[in-house]
Amino acid sequence: MGLVVQKYGGSSVADAEGIKRVAKRIVEAKQNGHQVVVVVSAMGDTTDELIDLAEQVSPMPAGREFDMLLTAGERISMALLAMAIKNLGHEAQSFTGSQAGVITDSVHNKARIIDVTPGRIRTALDEGNIAIVAGFQGVSQDKKDITTLGRGGSDTTAVALAAALDAEVCEIYTDVDGVFTADPRVVKKARKIDWISFEDMLELASSGSKVLLHRCVEYARRYNIPIHVRSSFSGLQGTWVSNEPRGDRKVEQAIISGVAHDTSEAKITVVGVPDKPGEAAAIFRAIADAEINIDMVVQNVSAASTGLTDISFTLPKTEGRKAIDALEKQKASIGFDSLRYDDQIGKISLVGAGMKTNPGVTASFFEALSNAGVNIELISTSEIRISVVTRADDVNEAVRAVHTAFGLDSDSDEAVVYGGTGR
Amino acid sequence: MGLVVQKYGGSSVADAEGIKRVAKRIVEAKQNGHQVVVVVSAMGDTTDELIDLAEQVSPMPAGREFDMLLTAGERISMALLAMAIKNLGHEAQSFTGSQAGVITDSVHNKARIIDVTPGRIRTALDEGNIAIVAGFQGVSQDKKDITTLGRGGSDTTAVALAAALDAEVCEIYTDVDGVFTADPRVVKKARKIDWISFEDMLELASSGSKVLLHRCVEYARRYNIPIHVRSSFSGLQGTWVSNEPRGDRKVEQAIISGVAHDTSEAKITVVGVPDKPGEAAAIFRAIADAEINIDMVVQNVSAASTGLTDISFTLPKTEGRKAIDALEKQKASIGFDSLRYDDQIGKISLVGAGMKTNPGVTASFFEALSNAGVNIELISTSEIRISVVTRADDVNEAVRAVHTAFGLDSDSDEAVVYGGTGR
Repeated sequence: MGLVVQKYGGSSVADAEGIKRVAKRIVEAKQNGHQVVVVVSAMGDTTDELIDLAEQVSPMPAGREFDMLLTAGERISMALLAMAIKNLGHEAQSFTGSQAGVITDSVHNKARIIDVTPGRIRTALDEGNIAIVAGFQGVSQDKKDITTLGRGGSDTTAVALAAALDAEVCEIYTDVDGVFTADPRVVKKARKIDWISFEDMLELASSGSKVLLHRCVEYARRYNIPIHVRSSFSGLQGTWVSNEPRGDRKVEQAIISGVAHDTSEAKITVVGVPDKPGEAAAIFRAIADAEINIDMVVQNVSAASTGLTDISFTLPKTEGRKAIDALEKQKASIGFDSLRYDDQIGKISLVGAGMKTNPGVTASFFEALSNAGVNIELISTSEIRISVVTRADDVNEAVRAVHTAFGLDSDSDEAVVYGGTGR
Repeated sequence: MGLVVQKYGGSSVADAEGIKRVAKRIVEAKQNGHQVVVVVSAMGDTTDELIDLAEQVSPMPAGREFDMLLTAGERISMALLAMAIKNLGHEAQSFTGSQAGVITDSVHNKARIIDVTPGRIRTALDEGNIAIVAGFQGVSQDKKDITTLGRGGSDTTAVALAAALDAEVCEIYTDVDGVFTADPRVVKKARKIDWISFEDMLELASSGSKVLLHRCVEYARRYNIPIHVRSSFSGLQGTWVSNEPRGDRKVEQAIISGVAHDTSEAKITVVGVPDKPGEAAAIFRAIADAEINIDMVVQNVSAASTGLTDISFTLPKTEGRKAIDALEKQKASIGFDSLRYDDQIGKISLVGAGMKTNPGVTASFFEALSNAGVNIELISTSEIRISVVTRADDVNEAVRAVHTAFGLDSDSDEAVVYGGTGR
C-alpha cells in the first residue's frame, strides 16, 4: 500500500457535516494501509463571500492582497478537517501551501508552480500523520509572498504534490461520479467513462468538459501520475485518467472518448484584412500583448478581386471587450476594415484517439450534425479531436445527435469502434 | 514625525464600512508624515464563528489546528484593510504574524512572544508602504507552526512591534474613548483618564478594567512604549499610559486613578486545614499543577482549640470546576475537611499611586463601603491598590459609593489628593 493524494472540492466540505463525512473517508484510506495526503479547497461559497467583501472595500481588488485574502478560505477548511480527523482518533496536521513547499512564480491571482519541496509533509507522514494541505495556494520564490494558483488551482496542487511525493494515485473527489461521455445535464444517456488517456482528457478539458481542468491533467501527464476522479458522496469507482488502460479495459476501449461542448466563448471576425505576409501575425500579436488566450482560428480564402480576407477566432466571452479594444488601437497599423463580435456561438467537440487515421469519423460527425439541422460556422481539428462552432441555440441538440451517432448512449451495448471497415 | 503603531480591534473593522473608515484614519496618519504600522484583529464576530465551526466538527478543538483555524480571521481583515488603503491611493502591504517576525514559544492557543524580528516590516516602511500586520498570531521558534497569543493578543502584538520598531507611540483604537475612572456602564459620572502610569494601569487591568489587558501593559512598561488608548469612531484624545505624565498633566495628577470591579471570579474556601507548615503550599501546588491562576488568598486565624484553619482564595469562575477536582483528588494527602464554592462574589478595587503611605485612603475606602451598607468578605492590598470581595449584588452600589467618596465624579472640579493633611 503506497501513498495516496486525495483532493476534496468546496462542495464536499461545504459544512460541518460534509467535513465529518470527508474525514471518515480519509480515515478509511489510512486504515487500508495507505499514507494519505489530503488537498482541500475552501468551504462551499467561502471564496465567493471573500471576493464580495473585497469588492465592497475596493473596486478593483487584485494582486498580493487579494491572494492573502482568498487563502484564508483553505486555512479554515483544512484546520477543521484536521480537527475532525483527530476526533476520529487519528493524527492529522494541516499545512499551508507555503508550509507544504508549494513554490510558485510571483504572478498573483494566477501563479504557476515552479517547484514542490514537501519536506514537512514527508516528515508528517513518516511520523504516522495524515497531512492536510491547503489547495490553490503557494509562496512566491523570490519575495516569499503568498500566491494563489487561479481557477482549478486545488486540483493542480493535488497533482503537483502527488508528483513530488511519488504517489500511487491522485484521487480527485467531486460531486459527480466521474468524467462522462457528454454533459449528463444535456445528454440523459451519457455514460461514465471508466478509463481515459491523458491526451483525450486534455482535449475534453480544453473543449468544455469541466470536471478536470487542462492545467491539472497536463501536469499529471508530464509526471505520469494516474488521476482517479470520483464522487465524495458515493463509494463508487469513478474515472481513471492515465497513460495506460487499467486492467482488462484495454480491449473494451472505444476510440471515441466523448463529446464536449462549450458556450462560454465568443467569436471575433476581423473583416477586410490585406492578404499579405505579417497581417495575421500583427493581429495575434496585439491579442497576445493584451494577455488574451484564443482558441480556434480560421482564415477565409482570400477573394482574388480585392486582395482582402477575413480572419475569425474564438476566445472567452470575458475577454471580448479587451480584445476589441486591443485590435481597435492597432487598426491603422494592421489595416483592416472592421471588427464583428458574436457571443451567441457554441462549440461541439468530439474527442477520441486515432481520429485522424479514421476518415469515417469526420464524415459521421458532419452527417450527424446535418441530420439534426445544425449549421456549421467554423471547423478545427487535431490528431484526436474535431470541433465545430455553431449557433449557441443549436448546441444541446448537436451534442445529443453526435452522442447517439457514435454509439455513446448508455443503452447501447458497446461503443462504436471505427477501424478497417473504412466506414 | 516618527513611527506610529496603530491597533484596531474587531469592532472597528466589523464590516466593509468600518474597514473603509479605519483606512481613512490610517491614511491621515501617513499624510501627517508618520511611518505607520497597523495591527488588526479579526472582523467583528469572525473568531466566534470559527470557534463555533470547530466545535461542530470536534468536541474539544485545541492546539495546533485550532490556531491554524483562528488565524484565518486576521488574514481576512488585514488583506481587506490593505486593499481599502490602496483604494485611497496609498501603498499598503499586509503581513501575517510569521511574516512580520513575531516569534513565539510552542504553547498553542496562548503562546508567548519570544522575539520580534520585523525585517520585512522595516523594508516595507522604507519603501514608503503602510504595513498591516495580523494581530494575535505568531510562529513558533522550534517547529515553525502557527500560534495564537490568546486573549488580548492583538494588543500585545501591537506593543511588541512598537518596541521592536522603536515606535513613538502605540495607539490602541477601540470602541470607547479611553480608560475611565470606573466602568461608565456602572458609574454614570465616570471620567476619562487623560494620563495614567504603567503601574496604575497594571493594577486596574488586573482588577477588572477591560480596556487594556495586563499582559499588553506589562510589555509596554518593560520596553517603555507609551500607549494611547482612543476611539476609532471619534477623533478625540484618549488616555495616555506611560512612565512620565505628559506635558502639564503632572501637576494635576490625582493619586487615585480609578475604581475597577470584577464579577468574573469565584471564591473557594478550604475548610479545616491543619495549621502546620506545608499545608498552604500543598493546596496551592495542587492548584498550580492544574494550571489555574488564582487571585486573592486569605488565611483565617487558626482556632487555638482545634489547630485547624480555613484558607480562601479567588479564581476565574471558568476554572472553578477544575480547581475543585484538583483539590478533591489531593484531599487525603492534604488533609482538609471540606471545600466550599461560591460564585456569587464581586471584587472592588481602588487604584492609585502612593496609597500605602496615605493611611487615610484605606479608611475612606472602608467608610464609603460601610455607608453604602456593603459587607466586606475578603481584603487584599498592594502598594497602589486596595481590593475587597463583596456579594456580587453589592458591586455596582459599592463602585458608585467609592467613586463619589474619592471625588472622581465628573461634576467635581478636581480629584481629591491625599497628602500631608494625614486625613
